[in-house]
Amino acid sequence: MKRRMLVIGIGAGNPEYITVQAINALNRASVLFIPNKGDDKSDLHRLRRDICERFIEGSDYRLVDFDVPERSKAGAYSADVADWRAAVQSTYERLLSDEIGEDEIGAFLVWGDPSLYDGTMGILDAIRSSGKFDLEFDVIPGISSVSALAARHKVALNRIGEPLTITTGRQVSKRLPDTGGNVVVMLDTRDAFASVTEDMDIHWGAYVGTEDEILIAGRLSEVRDEISRRIAEARDEKGWVMDTYLLSRGEDGDID
Amino acid sequence: MKRRMLVIGIGAGNPEYITVQAINALNRASVLFIPNKGDDKSDLHRLRRDICERFIEGSDYRLVDFDVPERSKAGAYSADVADWRAAVQSTYERLLSDEIGEDEIGAFLVWGDPSLYDGTMGILDAIRSSGKFDLEFDVIPGISSVSALAARHKVALNRIGEPLTITTGRQVSKRLPDTGGNVVVMLDTRDAFASVTEDMDIHWGAYVGTEDEILIAGRLSEVRDEISRRIAEARDEKGWVMDTYLLSRGEDGDID
Ligand SMILES: C[S@@+](CC[C@H](N)C(=O)[O-])C[C@H]1O[C@@H](n2cnc3c(N)ncnc32)[C@H](O)[C@@H]1O
Ligand SMILES: C[S@@+](CC[C@H](N)C(=O)[O-])C[C@H]1O[C@@H](n2cnc3c(N)ncnc32)[C@H](O)[C@@H]1O
Repeated sequence: MKRRMLVIGIGAGNPEYITVQAINALNRASVLFIPNKGDDKSDLHRLRRDICERFIEGSDYRLVDFDVPERSKAGAYSADVADWRAAVQSTYERLLSDEIGEDEIGAFLVWGDPSLYDGTMGILDAIRSSGKFDLEFDVIPGISSVSALAARHKVALNRIGEPLTITTGRQVSKRLPDTGGNVVVMLDTRDAFASVTEDMDIHWGAYVGTEDEILIAGRLSEVRDEISRRIAEARDEKGWVMDTYLLSRGEDGDID
Repeated sequence: MKRRMLVIGIGAGNPEYITVQAINALNRASVLFIPNKGDDKSDLHRLRRDICERFIEGSDYRLVDFDVPERSKAGAYSADVADWRAAVQSTYERLLSDEIGEDEIGAFLVWGDPSLYDGTMGILDAIRSSGKFDLEFDVIPGISSVSALAARHKVALNRIGEPLTITTGRQVSKRLPDTGGNVVVMLDTRDAFASVTEDMDIHWGAYVGTEDEILIAGRLSEVRDEISRRIAEARDEKGWVMDTYLLSRGEDGDID
């Protein structure tokens, strides 16, 4: 079965992060797949639908909601991830076979930038390799939550000439990367910043670019408790938190 | 002197990488500052002007070209960088005092994303701290060359759950970051990939997103000579090269 797909980065938060290229791609697609990741994230789901309504001209397109399988957290991390990817792959295969035709273009709307901690391209590669579909796809980059965080804090990610490492809360809770450069942390469900022993500057943001945005910056020793408190409150209120932060070694302890 | 500025990321290559937020910001600005970085980069200069003409409605704005001071490469790296930043800062101060007024909004158009290996925000911070201006600025994120590279190669930047380090050719020629994760290299004027001893996968791109785009991917051992050759040819032809690449440890040596 021949299939043509677009993987469209829609930016991470503000609907106006969308690019002209993404708008054109949305308008080229006949079928748009909108993931549903459980009730608690219905805000994000609505945001994706709003983007379609705002930026697609005419109405000759279909929105197809689908449920993203939940990842088990029962077994070993890598086994759980492998199982989960297999489940997502069969969901995608069903969408490709049942929801679009040979002469149509389908699109996955990806939060932020599709190249950063997102499985869509990898799963489409796996589907292509499986030989079940004669699959072609193009990728449209998007504004990542990392770029959004830096812009909202008006801060550079790297120090001049120095490296920047983007990593996960899970990794940082094991140890901080020791490249000597700055570190951006995503996917942190455990307040990994709270156990960082080195005193660094932190630029933290939750729901960056949205109406619910919270930004806090300062020396880690001075603001870490406040950040933990705000995360707990936000989780209570909305049921889920989406936060990212930059840890940096400020020159002379200066935050700027 | 009171001054209001916008730092606008315009994306790294394709004019359609521009976001709706950036278009709105361009339209809010009365004076747009367009850097000139020596004759050899006049392509980029033209691209910035084209973006203004294509996306700004009406004609009640001024484009102000300015020469970016050249960085000396004579002394120690950090001393040369410090001198260069001081020179850029006084250029900016002159633009702020002579080219815009209190009731106007000025804008710097920044290539790619302003948070990645770009000094604009840092220099505006320094100007603000100097107390010479009562300066306010906002930052609009843009599609970085890193996101563009990944999208054009249709490849994820990180392996699942693993870190990603973004660094410079200068750093990589000293040593590869040893976080175990993937590495993106920018600002490489010395073919640093050629001296990487570990055999990795490389996704290389020059002039990504533009008409002159060149993309090469494969095992480093197999494609490194071809990449060096293409860089030398491109440098001969255009006088300058703008390339970025992802080095990754492929599972089972697979490129996908
Ligand atoms: C599965 S990753 C996807 C990242 C996405 N592809 C991107 O480019 O930002 C989800 C993580 O991204 C970060 N994130 C996404 N959107 C965010 C936002 N608006 N504010 C803060 N963090 C965000 C959080 O760290 C979250 O755990
Ligand atoms: C001074 S840095 C600025 C980076 C920019 N702020 C960004 O977000 O991409 C310049 C470096 O960016 C990379 N670069 C910028 N545009 C590029 C493009 N279109 N293709 C490949 N590399 C690019 C190259 O590594 C170049 O040496």
